[in-house]
Amino acid sequence: MLSSKLTKMLYGGDYNPEQWDKSVWPEDMRMIRLAGMDIATVNVFSWAMLQPNDDTYDFSTLDEIMDMLHANGIYACLATSTGAHPAWMARKYPEILRVDFDGRKRKFGGRHNSCANSLVYRTYSAKLAGKIAERYKDHPALLLWHVSNEYGGECYCDNCAAAFRVWLKKKYGTLDKLNEQWNTRFWGHTFYDWDEIVPPNMLSEQWSPRHTCFQGISLDYTRFNSDSMLDCYKLEYDELKKHTPNVPVTTNLMGAYKPLDYFKWAKHMDIVSWDNYPSADTPVSYTAMMHDLMRGLKGGEPFLLMEQTPSQQNWQAYNSLKRPGVMALWSYQAVAHGADSVMFFQLRRSVGACEKYHGALIEHVGHEHTRVFRECAQLGSELSQLGDKLLNSRGSAKVGILFDWENWWAVEYSSGPSAALKYTDEVHKYYDALYQQNIAVDMVAMDADFSQYDVLIAPVMYMVKPGVAARLEQFTQTGGTFITTFFSGIVNENDIVTLGGYPGELRNLLGIWAEEIDALFPDQRNRIVMNDTLGKLSGEYECGLLCDLLHSEGADVIATYGEDFYKGMPVVTRNRFGQGEAWYVGSSPEASFLQGLLGQICEARGITPILPAVAGVEVVKRAKDGQSYVFVLNHNADAQSFDLGSVSGTELLTGAKLSGSAEVAGRGVLIIEEAK
Amino acid sequence: MLSSKLTKMLYGGDYNPEQWDKSVWPEDMRMIRLAGMDIATVNVFSWAMLQPNDDTYDFSTLDEIMDMLHANGIYACLATSTGAHPAWMARKYPEILRVDFDGRKRKFGGRHNSCANSLVYRTYSAKLAGKIAERYKDHPALLLWHVSNEYGGECYCDNCAAAFRVWLKKKYGTLDKLNEQWNTRFWGHTFYDWDEIVPPNMLSEQWSPRHTCFQGISLDYTRFNSDSMLDCYKLEYDELKKHTPNVPVTTNLMGAYKPLDYFKWAKHMDIVSWDNYPSADTPVSYTAMMHDLMRGLKGGEPFLLMEQTPSQQNWQAYNSLKRPGVMALWSYQAVAHGADSVMFFQLRRSVGACEKYHGALIEHVGHEHTRVFRECAQLGSELSQLGDKLLNSRGSAKVGILFDWENWWAVEYSSGPSAALKYTDEVHKYYDALYQQNIAVDMVAMDADFSQYDVLIAPVMYMVKPGVAARLEQFTQTGGTFITTFFSGIVNENDIVTLGGYPGELRNLLGIWAEEIDALFPDQRNRIVMNDTLGKLSGEYECGLLCDLLHSEGADVIATYGEDFYKGMPVVTRNRFGQGEAWYVGSSPEASFLQGLLGQICEARGITPILPAVAGVEVVKRAKDGQSYVFVLNHNADAQSFDLGSVSGTELLTGAKLSGSAEVAGRGVLIIEEAK
Amino acid sequence: MLSSKLTKMLYGGDYNPEQWDKSVWPEDMRMIRLAGMDIATVNVFSWAMLQPNDDTYDFSTLDEIMDMLHANGIYACLATSTGAHPAWMARKYPEILRVDFDGRKRKFGGRHNSCANSLVYRTYSAKLAGKIAERYKDHPALLLWHVSNEYGGECYCDNCAAAFRVWLKKKYGTLDKLNEQWNTRFWGHTFYDWDEIVPPNMLSEQWSPRHTCFQGISLDYTRFNSDSMLDCYKLEYDELKKHTPNVPVTTNLMGAYKPLDYFKWAKHMDIVSWDNYPSADTPVSYTAMMHDLMRGLKGGEPFLLMEQTPSQQNWQAYNSLKRPGVMALWSYQAVAHGADSVMFFQLRRSVGACEKYHGALIEHVGHEHTRVFRECAQLGSELSQLGDKLLNSRGSAKVGILFDWENWWAVEYSSGPSAALKYTDEVHKYYDALYQQNIAVDMVAMDADFSQYDVLIAPVMYMVKPGVAARLEQFTQTGGTFITTFFSGIVNENDIVTLGGYPGELRNLLGIWAEEIDALFPDQRNRIVMNDTLGKLSGEYECGLLCDLLHSEGADVIATYGEDFYKGMPVVTRNRFGQGEAWYVGSSPEASFLQGLLGQICEARGITPILPAVAGVEVVKRAKDGQSYVFVLNHNADAQSFDLGSVSGTELLTGAKLSGSAEVAGRGVLIIEEAK
Repeated sequence: MLSSKLTKMLYGGDYNPEQWDKSVWPEDMRMIRLAGMDIATVNVFSWAMLQPNDDTYDFSTLDEIMDMLHANGIYACLATSTGAHPAWMARKYPEILRVDFDGRKRKFGGRHNSCANSLVYRTYSAKLAGKIAERYKDHPALLLWHVSNEYGGECYCDNCAAAFRVWLKKKYGTLDKLNEQWNTRFWGHTFYDWDEIVPPNMLSEQWSPRHTCFQGISLDYTRFNSDSMLDCYKLEYDELKKHTPNVPVTTNLMGAYKPLDYFKWAKHMDIVSWDNYPSADTPVSYTAMMHDLMRGLKGGEPFLLMEQTPSQQNWQAYNSLKRPGVMALWSYQAVAHGADSVMFFQLRRSVGACEKYHGALIEHVGHEHTRVFRECAQLGSELSQLGDKLLNSRGSAKVGILFDWENWWAVEYSSGPSAALKYTDEVHKYYDALYQQNIAVDMVAMDADFSQYDVLIAPVMYMVKPGVAARLEQFTQTGGTFITTFFSGIVNENDIVTLGGYPGELRNLLGIWAEEIDALFPDQRNRIVMNDTLGKLSGEYECGLLCDLLHSEGADVIATYGEDFYKGMPVVTRNRFGQGEAWYVGSSPEASFLQGLLGQICEARGITPILPAVAGVEVVKRAKDGQSYVFVLNHNADAQSFDLGSVSGTELLTGAKLSGSAEVAGRGVLIIEEAK
Repeated sequence: MLSSKLTKMLYGGDYNPEQWDKSVWPEDMRMIRLAGMDIATVNVFSWAMLQPNDDTYDFSTLDEIMDMLHANGIYACLATSTGAHPAWMARKYPEILRVDFDGRKRKFGGRHNSCANSLVYRTYSAKLAGKIAERYKDHPALLLWHVSNEYGGECYCDNCAAAFRVWLKKKYGTLDKLNEQWNTRFWGHTFYDWDEIVPPNMLSEQWSPRHTCFQGISLDYTRFNSDSMLDCYKLEYDELKKHTPNVPVTTNLMGAYKPLDYFKWAKHMDIVSWDNYPSADTPVSYTAMMHDLMRGLKGGEPFLLMEQTPSQQNWQAYNSLKRPGVMALWSYQAVAHGADSVMFFQLRRSVGACEKYHGALIEHVGHEHTRVFRECAQLGSELSQLGDKLLNSRGSAKVGILFDWENWWAVEYSSGPSAALKYTDEVHKYYDALYQQNIAVDMVAMDADFSQYDVLIAPVMYMVKPGVAARLEQFTQTGGTFITTFFSGIVNENDIVTLGGYPGELRNLLGIWAEEIDALFPDQRNRIVMNDTLGKLSGEYECGLLCDLLHSEGADVIATYGEDFYKGMPVVTRNRFGQGEAWYVGSSPEASFLQGLLGQICEARGITPILPAVAGVEVVKRAKDGQSYVFVLNHNADAQSFDLGSVSGTELLTGAKLSGSAEVAGRGVLIIEEAK
Repeated sequence: MLSSKLTKMLYGGDYNPEQWDKSVWPEDMRMIRLAGMDIATVNVFSWAMLQPNDDTYDFSTLDEIMDMLHANGIYACLATSTGAHPAWMARKYPEILRVDFDGRKRKFGGRHNSCANSLVYRTYSAKLAGKIAERYKDHPALLLWHVSNEYGGECYCDNCAAAFRVWLKKKYGTLDKLNEQWNTRFWGHTFYDWDEIVPPNMLSEQWSPRHTCFQGISLDYTRFNSDSMLDCYKLEYDELKKHTPNVPVTTNLMGAYKPLDYFKWAKHMDIVSWDNYPSADTPVSYTAMMHDLMRGLKGGEPFLLMEQTPSQQNWQAYNSLKRPGVMALWSYQAVAHGADSVMFFQLRRSVGACEKYHGALIEHVGHEHTRVFRECAQLGSELSQLGDKLLNSRGSAKVGILFDWENWWAVEYSSGPSAALKYTDEVHKYYDALYQQNIAVDMVAMDADFSQYDVLIAPVMYMVKPGVAARLEQFTQTGGTFITTFFSGIVNENDIVTLGGYPGELRNLLGIWAEEIDALFPDQRNRIVMNDTLGKLSGEYECGLLCDLLHSEGADVIATYGEDFYKGMPVVTRNRFGQGEAWYVGSSPEASFLQGLLGQICEARGITPILPAVAGVEVVKRAKDGQSYVFVLNHNADAQSFDLGSVSGTELLTGAKLSGSAEVAGRGVLIIEEAK
């Protein structure tokens, strides 16, 4: 819906002219245009300016900004400014201030500081969104709405407690049902009155953000918190839509941000957008997975890269510069995985407060003669050159990885078997095994249509939601390949164990029984001993973290443990189920095993790499109207030659015709428009 | 008193049928009996069920449970359910909620959550105990009472502050005395009114749980806290005894649990019971020491092993499975050290909340065809086979190690000389040196009859309580061998230094003066240089942690320092005192030195190993009515041959006749009924 | 002003007889005199004794103490006792209790426990100081006043919040100005009413003591906190001066104590005094720097060493003994750097509470036959022998290092570029490079007269205060050599960036532009490649932490980077400016580079070492009335021979005539009175 207005990929970023004297604005415009930009996210943190007290709204400065953008041919991604409340509001209505995990009532400060269940916050934020929408609904610069900013955090105040009880009543209906699903008879925590329930934090059921006495209440509070913020978003969304039913609405997400169930949120967003801030030690394949996850939120629709830094960040311990070329490389990585924009935080670097050492298009020196500006302007030029070719193009993957926020929460609230078990780490191991082989992946919600995939992987599918086991059986029955791992099939959606033997609801599908689960110390390893050669897999591999002690109940034993008292017990199994197969990997293997296993499974299903793999070179494909584009992203510092296989066509940035083999510069990018 | 009713060692564990649908109960009974069990600890966390509001008590479910147990020939260890208060009570009477060390008022959650000085808690908990006692006093299943559960934690609320002042008035009589014993003139903390005194925590005198500005107040608050919980226990005890004067009462202790002075508690317990949860890296000799400490609480009487896990725990970082054989091995270790029961937490694994991944007899799979069940059933069969032979048998040690909770608290509240000094570590070093040589040890209270021992060891006897120095002089005068270490004899019972030269009240007995105390960094070592050969000791040994700079005042200098500016000063001394000897070890030596020294001292006193030592093989003896039983516990994974020395007899589990030498399987156990 | 009364260096320490029975006092006197001492700091923590309630003051014990001191020929350094309030005051007036960084209201306990903005505290502390001054103004023992004790800590209570707003109004005049200088438009934090401003702590703008959302408010609160305590000091100062205009007043400082701007404090102190407690791993050159910093607070005037330990401390993790000789060595180090006293905490070791294991002249044994006493008495004898020779002598340095508390705060509140950047570490690197070459250094305030130095070094001069850039240009213009480093010239006094290119206001002087700042990971290094040989410098050196990417704008490029994409860009530059030179070191180099660079710069300016350098041997010079004294301090355990160069004269402790070469014992000291 957004791309219909566009003729090229959006290029720009956050812009806060209200933090500057107006004398600077013309120079801003000159430099932003010089960089080839066409969009600015404005009004992100202006609530105090727009509403200096209860009764006054003042849009004069924002009017000027919007007009200036339009006059310069720059679209506005117009934010609602509700990501931080004004100081006067905190003083007048302390209820908007959060109570933190330690039970402390906060005072004014920071951002993301409003209680999502404060009536004052909900009323005033929705009202502000409505007023902005009404005022700018016909403004020619307006391209899309940006609600609040990076929703996040938690609150544990009394208003939240009351709202939580209402939420629980709606979910469970009766206290009996709640007591049962939280298993409150354990430790005699039976509730006789809804008002006895208090939010789970350091003062009640938890002893750290990850440790809880009762998984049920903590899981529900996490859901409730995500829903509460989503409600705030929806209130603003509705106000915006009242006035501009056709202007798309987004809010900037943050990749695998644990507290918010983005699959649920995305249903209420017109377009997904997100802020990509890898740490210096983030693997590039993890960033790739984040892009795919964001694309997956709306089932493959293009998303916006709303924020990234042109050069350095400020909140890391060691804020290294992005090396020459890296900013463009990572920008194209986003595009390759489905972004229809490249945007920065921010266009001009602030002079004071905590983000003043964060990179920007316009640095403190104030002119364009900087490495950072030159790289930005070069990218701007390239994006113009690409025109609308890539806009609204789509990826196409036959392999899906199931990702589930509620499962993530549950896995990590678990007391035992191992504190070392991190959900996203395990998911990333499987993702990375495919990434390294240039095999396209979709990140898939539990309620997606599974039938579009040939292979579905569900790492650590600890929680099995209602109906999912049956849908997975149906998927496999009709020819799908399903892969899951240790510590799967254990609980229902409220973290209540499925009795009768692990992996519970998945046992029939997998044809195994996991009798025990051993937790290994960080320096401990077991071995995966292949029973036979399977594609490239043979011999032995290391594994660790957790070891399920498996019995086959019909599944083929592909590999057994090589160590310890369970040596010889199955560790990898394959169950033929209908026309498909269901695999179980009972421990966490080393990378080479997973690459071999998944490579073999894909090959068997006719799923082939886009290009033969070269270390450090990422290959991704997008397509539109039958025309496909192959991105070759060289994350190495040195140039790499590679085999083009059956791919041939025109490299869009240089116009070179490529076939047979090619070379990509160190930190360079090729975008090959495939010959049809 | 318990054993008179018994014909065999108790075998069973915690059982919470009220957390389950009754349809499961018959299967529970079948499996519990199948495992050879005869006792179940019930009603541990049922307060909310038993008392749904102020005025209602409902024992219907508990009636059914008790009847069911009896019908199945299973004894009840009947708990009073006061280890966690109901949610309604917390809501209605917030005073029962604790204030934590950080000064935060808690909300409902967790367990061990009641303020010990809450009148509401004291009233309602005693009332509940009384009602339970009245109802079940004649129930045929009733074997013993289990008050509350794992008492622990602290509270710093205003009720506690008020009670603390009363406690202090009782102890000190006048503020003058208190000011003197807390040395409040330091930093001008003189109190002129009792109400000026506030509990020592992060908001007042302490800056961590271990660091305090005033040792006096922190030490007294720790005593007060232990006493306050003991008062709660005693209130329930008295209620139970009113109705069942002949049914023994216990509460489950936790080994070397620092906050509670178990020697003081044990005086009010009919039988000691405790929960044994070693971490994966706990040395087996430490577990042995814990068993001996629990046995020592009541001067050698048998105790109950109330809880252990059949397989894995859930609250460790890495919850590894107990390897095959280990559960039985550790069970027999408890028995060897004086347990008259083997009991588990728990009999059926819960379906929800934080302990659902803790091991159980009946696992989530729900049937008996598991490794864990088979091992439990095998042990049940063996315990039946052993019958009453070992019941109420006793150990017999000529070596005692003095252990004192108040000394422990004082040592670790001390600011200087070294943060690395841990009381239990130093005690364990001495214990281990004897353990490794198969020399039996008793853990001894400060107020015990010292005359029953030939050798008394008091590691880091920092605090010398009133009369103790004289009693130790008497002990040594009449032929005893006394051994103590660096940082001993420093303070009185209120942590006030004994002036005139360290080791203060022990100086006369030891014949030395410690002029200075050097604290070594973790990577620093000094050397112990033997003046002469002493038994197996000769040459040099490493030492560290603290180094007392000693002057002999009559003591023989056995060894001197080998390094630093105090090279040549005494480090180990022996003072002949009357008919005995008093040894001083001025630093913390390496293990081989302590084994040599204690071995030599024991040998000189005619105290000999039960069997010659084999690495990893523990040897313990219990005896009854002149019949002795030698336990051989092989903690190694591999079988070990060993020399039986003068021991011969019948191995009770196999019936084999043993003499000369024997072999014990990896993680195996022999129980040799000695030929008379 | 103090030294005019003196005939020898003061020798003594803290003495708390009120904590002891009077029967001990005569023995104290005997031993203190036996040690050759002539001063005792008394009445440090006696508020509760002096004022048992609102209306009563009782000086009877203090009268006795003062009389006793006088009768024994011992001066009193008389404290005002306001470093810890009485318990009754805390109970009656809770407003005097602080609120901590976490927002918790404290209860009675500890010391340094009064809110500096409590009217009750201010009123009662000033009143007490006045009463003491009135009572003892003519007492013959009175030598100097000691206000409170080791001022420190912070408070965040509502009284402080109110006082902060007053402080801000005074600083900024209008909210507009404040909003501008805090850049509150960032995140929409604009204040419309002074009462909207709350202290920055964990509940508002900060997320750790070092991390803040708004540097402006945190910086101002740090200033406000320092000023608030200074106000308390000044209130007492004024009361003391009312009665004794000619008795000098001090308060004991703590070296580089971050929270208090001691340069500002020193303007209100008659003489600086400080407490020297190096940790076991503190480099001796760091201690030297601390002495020089304390001397620098009043522009080179002698200071008092108010406290050090005779042997061990108690609050370190591992409190090792001072090795034989070290106490005297470190005492002479203080004297060499400008101390006119050697004083201890404390004269008698306390019997209870948290400092009882801290060293003292009189230890728990109570007699003088200890190593510690003997060493103290020996030093006392030497100090008597030295007489008044060194009293009021001065150092003389041509090299100054600029040190600035506000810059320190700002550097470490900064979010980015590197968490590893510690201001005092960088300052110490430059200090140490000179220290290792026996080149005298002054630590210099930003508002000092720069013209007295030939070389001025300003490591990490991040904040440039008003007028300072012009004064540095003037300094250089007229022939001075100025040296600064990476991350300098960035912000104004309110942490607002100077726009137009780093190093901002220093850019003209330095002739460079720093385009970007790269932050290296802890294990990363770059290389400094010398363009040419410069004195002893040639070839390559390591550097790290931060790397400025420099462009010369006229400066000579002395060295370039050897690695990374900025290889070849300048890293060390020299700008000829008028008659002088301005150097820039763009990264943090290894020690050998700095020694070479500073050695070369000093040599070029004719600044020569006092003596040729010997590793571990510190050489310092003091002079008076044209007579100079060279201190040779051997920090090595072994004796060292060294070349006396042009120095010859009489060693004052032995009377030996020295010239040519000499030897100094391990941990020994020579004080050479130079032949004229």
